[in-house]
Amino acid sequence: MRAARYVGNGGIEVAEVAASPPGPGEVQLAVAYTGICGTDLHILHGAMDARVTLPAVLGHEMSGRVAALGEGVTGWAVGAAVTVMPLRWCGACPACLGGNSHICQRLDFVGIDSPGALQQRWNVPAGLLVGLPPGLSLEHAALVEPTAVAVHDVRRAGPVAGQQALVVGAGPIGVLIACVARAEGARVLLAEVDAGRRAFAEGLGFEVIDPSGGGVPEHVEAWTAGAGVPVAFEVSSSQPGLDAALASLGVRGRLVVVGIHPPERRIDLFRVFWRELTLLGARVYQRQDFERAVELLADRAVPAAELISRIEPLANAEAAFRSLAEGQGVMKVLVACEGPDGGSDD
Amino acid sequence: MRAARYVGNGGIEVAEVAASPPGPGEVQLAVAYTGICGTDLHILHGAMDARVTLPAVLGHEMSGRVAALGEGVTGWAVGAAVTVMPLRWCGACPACLGGNSHICQRLDFVGIDSPGALQQRWNVPAGLLVGLPPGLSLEHAALVEPTAVAVHDVRRAGPVAGQQALVVGAGPIGVLIACVARAEGARVLLAEVDAGRRAFAEGLGFEVIDPSGGGVPEHVEAWTAGAGVPVAFEVSSSQPGLDAALASLGVRGRLVVVGIHPPERRIDLFRVFWRELTLLGARVYQRQDFERAVELLADRAVPAAELISRIEPLANAEAAFRSLAEGQGVMKVLVACEGPDGGSDD
Repeated sequence: MRAARYVGNGGIEVAEVAASPPGPGEVQLAVAYTGICGTDLHILHGAMDARVTLPAVLGHEMSGRVAALGEGVTGWAVGAAVTVMPLRWCGACPACLGGNSHICQRLDFVGIDSPGALQQRWNVPAGLLVGLPPGLSLEHAALVEPTAVAVHDVRRAGPVAGQQALVVGAGPIGVLIACVARAEGARVLLAEVDAGRRAFAEGLGFEVIDPSGGGVPEHVEAWTAGAGVPVAFEVSSSQPGLDAALASLGVRGRLVVVGIHPPERRIDLFRVFWRELTLLGARVYQRQDFERAVELLADRAVPAAELISRIEPLANAEAAFRSLAEGQGVMKVLVACEGPDGGSDD
Repeated sequence: MRAARYVGNGGIEVAEVAASPPGPGEVQLAVAYTGICGTDLHILHGAMDARVTLPAVLGHEMSGRVAALGEGVTGWAVGAAVTVMPLRWCGACPACLGGNSHICQRLDFVGIDSPGALQQRWNVPAGLLVGLPPGLSLEHAALVEPTAVAVHDVRRAGPVAGQQALVVGAGPIGVLIACVARAEGARVLLAEVDAGRRAFAEGLGFEVIDPSGGGVPEHVEAWTAGAGVPVAFEVSSSQPGLDAALASLGVRGRLVVVGIHPPERRIDLFRVFWRELTLLGARVYQRQDFERAVELLADRAVPAAELISRIEPLANAEAAFRSLAEGQGVMKVLVACEGPDGGSDD
């Protein structure tokens, strides 16, 4: 079988490697599609070399079918369509004991800390599988993981039905948050500096503004008849984005911090105090978020077809990374791992 | 009657003024005790000259008795022991309409934005009165308002029973938060740079550490067997205090921002994301907080006798401000407005 591996120095190499049989409690998956995410790109750019072990098979957004069952695995049949929730926790740290195993203090994020899905056969613990319904294609199901991120982010905000929500940043996660919030009954406004991304979000029916010249809080104030929004999502990872989100919140507003910020951000804590705001960190997802993401994709509340900008065969994995890095309105890029395009010859 | 008035340039003058009768819907109070708080001191130091109208009768922490009823007031009898919740809201702004009238966008904070309790007779709308039970002395009841702040702060943190809580800053509000959290079932650790305040908090039975040399997160980690605290209160209004509180929180920990910070604080948003932390702004109080504060003082869960460092007669109001400004382990300073000490001659 073939595997695409990050070999350091910005390089991806596609190599022929032997598939190992699934161990006890594991399932071997025939990977259909693997999505490339911003974190994968960070890894390729060397930003996480201290964390990954080379050569590293990346990929944590995927869909596929059960190909073989390891010893002791029950409840799954060969051929079943599945995705993987790529988190392995220790079960013993304070986070796990406190019911927050998804942010276990010794978390193994599969596809970063251990081998991922950019390969044709992938062995994972059976407990990580999430079944897919018949109506959801494997292509669309490769978006379950990033959609689960968005579901988790929206859930962290508390109920949003009937509320106006601001999403700062209309990259893939920002747009997914907008889709999920809309599906949960919110009216969503997106702020995005990139014209291509603005056009894309408008094409999905969202109200979108350009925050480049400032003016987001003023726009939001008019949009909310002076109240400010009850909920905002910071997905731009930028200081201006953070400032705009915070300044747009109404009394008791909630800001979900989704973007990854450096440790020293400036923040207007006086406003946090004065308006009794709430800031909530949100990271990865819990099982219920994954299951809800499957539903939203199957129901087409999340428009997977529009979100998938390009599909590259496994042999061209590097091109998939490259096209994501180039931006140009590209949202999700998938790598097809199976079939002739995937270069499968096993 | 006499009134103590801030006349600008750091000055307080005590003047003989005519008492006006209560207007329709108002109650005239015979003020017994008025507490001086840090905000009053800020006003005296000129920091809020843009907000106050000179000469300004300050004072928003008080106790007293009903002296006369204005037209249409029912439900109160002359002689009744009361305190005042010093908030007047508009009832029409988004905050009020959203059920958060305590942080009304046009809030009149009585004693700052309109005349306060540093006078012998004080007319207030009857709706602001909160009755006092027989077991609570008027002296101790002067602490209801700051205790209500602490009750609100603890309530913003969510349930704390059985939890370990860190309070950064052991001034009057920090100590009151510690008392309230303990009464609600938390185990409290205080961090305080001032030796006199540390000794005072230890005298109330609290665990207290000196954060001057750093090391608070390490101490908390040991104190919580590696977990970090589930809840912290930032009451120091300082960057190091904020840093220490944030770095001491465990997974899904909640940080209540009580201290008033300048708009540009640095904050480790990466940690907020990584541990899924929650930051909550907390400002003033709601009616239920005031009523709970009365209970806690009546039950002696809040040790008013120990907290009251000094009582000055109204004629010496300036000395009350001065002793608070000098620090030296002083917690609460009250001004006695009635009786011979108050200089009453009406």
